[in-house]
Amino acid sequence: MKKTVLCIIAALGLMSSVPGAAQQSIWGGPQSVSPQINEDNTVTFRIFAPDADTVQVTGDCIPLMEVPLPDGKMAHVRTAGMQRDSAGVWTYTVPEPLPSELYSYNLIVDGVKVTDPSNVYMIRDVNSVFSIFVIGGGQGDLYAVNDVPHGTVSRMWYPSPSLGMQRRLTVYLPAGYEDSSRRYPVLYLLHGMGGDEEAWISLGRTAQIMDNLIARGKAEPMIVVMPNGNAYQEAAPGEAADGMKQPGTDRSRSMEGSYETSFPDIVDFVDSHFRTETKKSGRAIAGLSMGGFHSLHISCYYPDAFDYVGLFSAAIRHREGLDSPVYRDVEAQIARQFSKAPVLYYIAIGDEDFLYKDNCGFREFLDSKGYPYEYHESGEGHIWKNWRIYLSDFVTKLFK
Amino acid sequence: MKKTVLCIIAALGLMSSVPGAAQQSIWGGPQSVSPQINEDNTVTFRIFAPDADTVQVTGDCIPLMEVPLPDGKMAHVRTAGMQRDSAGVWTYTVPEPLPSELYSYNLIVDGVKVTDPSNVYMIRDVNSVFSIFVIGGGQGDLYAVNDVPHGTVSRMWYPSPSLGMQRRLTVYLPAGYEDSSRRYPVLYLLHGMGGDEEAWISLGRTAQIMDNLIARGKAEPMIVVMPNGNAYQEAAPGEAADGMKQPGTDRSRSMEGSYETSFPDIVDFVDSHFRTETKKSGRAIAGLSMGGFHSLHISCYYPDAFDYVGLFSAAIRHREGLDSPVYRDVEAQIARQFSKAPVLYYIAIGDEDFLYKDNCGFREFLDSKGYPYEYHESGEGHIWKNWRIYLSDFVTKLFK
Repeated sequence: MKKTVLCIIAALGLMSSVPGAAQQSIWGGPQSVSPQINEDNTVTFRIFAPDADTVQVTGDCIPLMEVPLPDGKMAHVRTAGMQRDSAGVWTYTVPEPLPSELYSYNLIVDGVKVTDPSNVYMIRDVNSVFSIFVIGGGQGDLYAVNDVPHGTVSRMWYPSPSLGMQRRLTVYLPAGYEDSSRRYPVLYLLHGMGGDEEAWISLGRTAQIMDNLIARGKAEPMIVVMPNGNAYQEAAPGEAADGMKQPGTDRSRSMEGSYETSFPDIVDFVDSHFRTETKKSGRAIAGLSMGGFHSLHISCYYPDAFDYVGLFSAAIRHREGLDSPVYRDVEAQIARQFSKAPVLYYIAIGDEDFLYKDNCGFREFLDSKGYPYEYHESGEGHIWKNWRIYLSDFVTKLFK
Repeated sequence: MKKTVLCIIAALGLMSSVPGAAQQSIWGGPQSVSPQINEDNTVTFRIFAPDADTVQVTGDCIPLMEVPLPDGKMAHVRTAGMQRDSAGVWTYTVPEPLPSELYSYNLIVDGVKVTDPSNVYMIRDVNSVFSIFVIGGGQGDLYAVNDVPHGTVSRMWYPSPSLGMQRRLTVYLPAGYEDSSRRYPVLYLLHGMGGDEEAWISLGRTAQIMDNLIARGKAEPMIVVMPNGNAYQEAAPGEAADGMKQPGTDRSRSMEGSYETSFPDIVDFVDSHFRTETKKSGRAIAGLSMGGFHSLHISCYYPDAFDYVGLFSAAIRHREGLDSPVYRDVEAQIARQFSKAPVLYYIAIGDEDFLYKDNCGFREFLDSKGYPYEYHESGEGHIWKNWRIYLSDFVTKLFK
């Protein structure tokens, strides 16, 4: 009992002296500095946990290590043990400087994976929440907020008569939009399975990437529209009337054609509510994984709509037996699309991606027909690090 | 070592079989259902933590209990021990049904206060992060997303020549704004010390409250502007060029007059970028704690600007020795303000608030002068529960 009470007192900090734990947190808060980005770009994680038996840190910033599984096989994990000092603070410092990137991690306290209590910066990926930090000095600078003009980010709702519901989308307007009367080109940017209209703006750091590339003169000022791409869903978890359900991976009405044929609802809404370029030359569509699949099919089903197409780690093959016109004679649709010479057809994937082979097959098909495309192959697999890099590259090629 | 490895395997779940922890989380995720809102509005918390020695849950949803401190005194905490079953799942169910409200909580795993790994819904209050849930059927329904028309929420930047910087603000536009040509009244809604332009929209559930009250016909459609109220700061932590600093409570340039005199920069920006009512009768200002202090002073320093003023748990007294004109002869400023008969001067505070006595003193002053105001006294203290309730009441009285 004594240990339990001291645990409570330690964990609640100053709040133990006030009735109720919900006083505004002007005072109190975490007791450790974590993560600490050191001068040499190593990073130190800390957590005050005097009563824990083991604490680890796991994430893409931790070196890969092999651990034996109970069945004798080996597993590869990016997980490291933290060391406890006499005051009860556990510490781990990564052994090598980290390249400039956005990293995500969790702590594991006596077997429970949690976000870092000392770090308020976290992002949700479907139903997992990670703590994050950015190492600057390179690619990571594109993901940081810098002293440049900032665009406006809006969450709004549009009517989708095709899907019979109001639906939510996220819109990035470039700095200067509100004080101008010009029309802007539009990039439609689509998320993957399990994602939603929050994915590109949070995990994808789209607003930061666009602010920074536009300020550097590398990207044209453009509107970026990030719709919800799940035809079964009005909005991201917690943002629709079905309440604070924990995010799942409902696949009803996924990749069966209804989202693709509802896409004109989104374009109509955007064109009627923002000052957009409404010609093909002013429109791009790109997406990751399922969003790449959507971009592939929407762009060939509506061959006059988009002059720029980006497939990032795209799913290629549709399920058998679907009767949507979207998947009927896709080869003929693509032929029609390329007969109209899109300005850019861009494919990017990592060589460890589980969709790598499908993408090879798709490129072989394009090659066999002589359809031109631009191809970028990266390392690693089906991860947000790659998708942020692909986006940062793709947007510099648009609307020039 | 064996225990450590098994801990890692358990915590990483399916991710142990893939290299790197950053694959898109389509599969995997939490293993427990938590929180589970039961039919009788009790709530069950769960966490899978077979290797933990003690797990507690703490928050405003837990009954108050007394615990002895090491020095023999008693502390009052809302913290309860969870019970472990043979599978390693820890469980706690609150003993009584909870009234309809938005609740916040944390779990404490072997002394470490964390968010609930099974619940993706969390909000940051200054430098603490809480897991949240809503009990419906009453006041909580105002904080839930319901099947009603939804407004647009934008994060944008405005120039503040007075403060010499670009600054960030959050704007709520009521449903229908974009498809209308009418002008809308504006509520300026200000946060407290340690807060920022994210506080009212996240902790305050402003978008949900406004959507729901407008849909019920209880509130007029209005624009709500939630600026950053810290004169030392461009934007919320992580949203400005100073990087992902952990939120602190920098008090430089706080409550010393410069924010108040910069307020016309905000109003000018809003009036020039949105279709607003620009008369006094179309403007309200309200805030909590420091934001109440700001509302008090801005509304009397600019007595022709706001017909509606709301002081929620307001700080009243300014520091001695400040030489800002904002605090010069405040009684005369208030006399001038009331000579122009504001439509509503609204004061709300909880009877346990540490600012309660100051508010009594301020009301005595208003009474002694015969200045009319509306007063609402609630239970409890300086907490978001109260501020959400005050907002839900205040906005029903505006612009009628």
